[in-house]
Amino acid sequence: MLYIKAEKNSSLYKDTLLDNVIPFWEKNSIDTKNGGYYTCLDTKGNVFDTDKFMWLQGRQAWLFSMLYNKVKKNENWLKIAKNGIDFIRNKGMDADGNFYFSTTEDGKPLVQPYNIFSDCFAAMAFSQYATASGDEEIKQLAIDTYFNILKKKDNPKGIYEKGTDARPLKSFALPMILSNLVLELEDVLPKEEVEKTIDFSIHEVMEIFLNKKSGLIYEFVRPDGSLEDSFNGRLLNPGHGIEAMWFMIDIGVRRNDKKLINKATTTILNILEYSWDQKYGGILYFMDAHQKPPQQLEWDQKLWWVHLEALVALSKGYEQTQNPELLLWYNKVHDYAWSHFSDPENGEWFGYLNRQGEVLLDLKGGKWKGCFHVPRAMYQCWKSFENIKNNK
Amino acid sequence: MLYIKAEKNSSLYKDTLLDNVIPFWEKNSIDTKNGGYYTCLDTKGNVFDTDKFMWLQGRQAWLFSMLYNKVKKNENWLKIAKNGIDFIRNKGMDADGNFYFSTTEDGKPLVQPYNIFSDCFAAMAFSQYATASGDEEIKQLAIDTYFNILKKKDNPKGIYEKGTDARPLKSFALPMILSNLVLELEDVLPKEEVEKTIDFSIHEVMEIFLNKKSGLIYEFVRPDGSLEDSFNGRLLNPGHGIEAMWFMIDIGVRRNDKKLINKATTTILNILEYSWDQKYGGILYFMDAHQKPPQQLEWDQKLWWVHLEALVALSKGYEQTQNPELLLWYNKVHDYAWSHFSDPENGEWFGYLNRQGEVLLDLKGGKWKGCFHVPRAMYQCWKSFENIKNNK
Repeated sequence: MLYIKAEKNSSLYKDTLLDNVIPFWEKNSIDTKNGGYYTCLDTKGNVFDTDKFMWLQGRQAWLFSMLYNKVKKNENWLKIAKNGIDFIRNKGMDADGNFYFSTTEDGKPLVQPYNIFSDCFAAMAFSQYATASGDEEIKQLAIDTYFNILKKKDNPKGIYEKGTDARPLKSFALPMILSNLVLELEDVLPKEEVEKTIDFSIHEVMEIFLNKKSGLIYEFVRPDGSLEDSFNGRLLNPGHGIEAMWFMIDIGVRRNDKKLINKATTTILNILEYSWDQKYGGILYFMDAHQKPPQQLEWDQKLWWVHLEALVALSKGYEQTQNPELLLWYNKVHDYAWSHFSDPENGEWFGYLNRQGEVLLDLKGGKWKGCFHVPRAMYQCWKSFENIKNNK
Repeated sequence: MLYIKAEKNSSLYKDTLLDNVIPFWEKNSIDTKNGGYYTCLDTKGNVFDTDKFMWLQGRQAWLFSMLYNKVKKNENWLKIAKNGIDFIRNKGMDADGNFYFSTTEDGKPLVQPYNIFSDCFAAMAFSQYATASGDEEIKQLAIDTYFNILKKKDNPKGIYEKGTDARPLKSFALPMILSNLVLELEDVLPKEEVEKTIDFSIHEVMEIFLNKKSGLIYEFVRPDGSLEDSFNGRLLNPGHGIEAMWFMIDIGVRRNDKKLINKATTTILNILEYSWDQKYGGILYFMDAHQKPPQQLEWDQKLWWVHLEALVALSKGYEQTQNPELLLWYNKVHDYAWSHFSDPENGEWFGYLNRQGEVLLDLKGGKWKGCFHVPRAMYQCWKSFENIKNNK
């Protein structure tokens, strides 16, 4: 029974990835004239806005490089990856090696580098592409970008930081992304640097931001790790917490650290219990740890990436632990996500549903949604279910 | 029939203002220890967060000063206004006369002055309070703050501006707020300055941001006034447009400019036709002028201030023109707003509904909702219906 289900899921993810999701981006997103990718695509894949957002340029270049490295040596995928890499390097980077937030379609900077996340996705893209192509110059760029991120990490917004020093908070996003980034850059960084950053990330994520009392991940804590009773201090972002837990499982597998894996899977279950919408199903986008009204007006919406990261975390967690609770939750999230987000007719998944589960924005890509969470999750779930099937 | 309705509405607004809304803020929001006001209040008025947002400090100090000046010489109202004025002056202002976005409850700066809107609401508060109290020092502060705003108006975000010069857009918010601010400061500013700024505002609002072809107000246009096909260039904020139209009606009345008043009322009707939710009723929060997916995830929500500003605009417009279309729309918005937002039991109005009209956040005040739109609209509608009644 379980074997059959694992085989069925494995095929579902593989087929959807290769026959539905990737063709959607291959067909609709490539800007052959200016380089880079269009990401503002409507239901059917028509471009509805031409601005280029550097997060999404990096993520798509990463994704096609990753497919080339891990799925198949498809030269068209490498070509698509190069189309983004060249755009990011030639148009997305300022003179100091920082990456803009966005540019026009022909690469004129629109929004300054006001945070380090564009840099993180550029570094991931450079590293995967260097592995795929053997391009030494891009490899060096990955390394340089990584160390530039570390240099900026204690003041990631630089001159654009509007907060005073009166009540400093540190953000979960930083150790979370570092824990994934460092594994992505493992091939190009010194071994010592990799281990040091992994140690830092595990400590920050699992000892500081994971709250012992509630078993939940907080988005912001004080520099000393204590909780603050303020809007940001009470903020929970369930999708973020769940996504970080599968980064931790990957690290646990790499280090053969069963304790870390178990702690991560327990946390996945805690977050899902807390954030599952009992009324309409699905995982809520933002919550307040004291059940106060959150600042985010979109708090009750159901977002594609939250559900996909949960599917990855649950299938990966089950692959490693065979904990039946994870399988129960996997099935629950699977049923909700596949019946609400997927679009077999036009390709890709919808991104934004209202609380009731109806499509809120009928786009397939936009300012924040590109070629990333859907295909990455499809790949990860495909491989997890393949392993689950083969281990039985 | 109309007379009876106008009398009934006039009483409804007056009684709700004086017996339901103002008591809510008098009872729950005053910080007698640190000065200023708590604005994060739950359904019943309990404080759920203590941070102080300078927009809302200024707006509440303005409101109580305005009530003292226009409704009744209630010394408690003047005392409440002073409580805010002192906090804004002593804790909300930096050394250069700019106003922070937020502070802790005891006045430690939390978020830097990154825009001019805190300054605008502070200036309005100082001016009304100076009139109420006769305080010459506060009067001078109103004048100084006004000219500091003008100094910053071409680069309102200063060093916090993240946009490059590649594709500059100008924002409707600036001429809109100036058109209201300058009338608020009429008593303290030189007559010449007042007329000049009114001329500027009318031109910008009615000739530049009001699009001749669609009859709608755009949130952003190019410096030369042309439209841009980008996320910001396509953005419509119906509540903003409607609110600005009653500022224009006020200016039209002041200048006895019937043409301006008629143009403003036509625009109110255009915006309402475009933004009324045919499916669930109510006015949508954000729209895209090309029917593309907007960036704002909260686009389909129903917000208190949008509906209250529409009630003010429609009752004021009807008072001035007796156009029956305005009365039809008034009744439609009235029925929606009073049945969905008001809370006779606990006081004040709810602020945030989902598209279906259910309460999305059960707060009465927060980071952006304070003692302002509800009581200001109650006062304005009360007076308009009183005039409508008396003119018949």
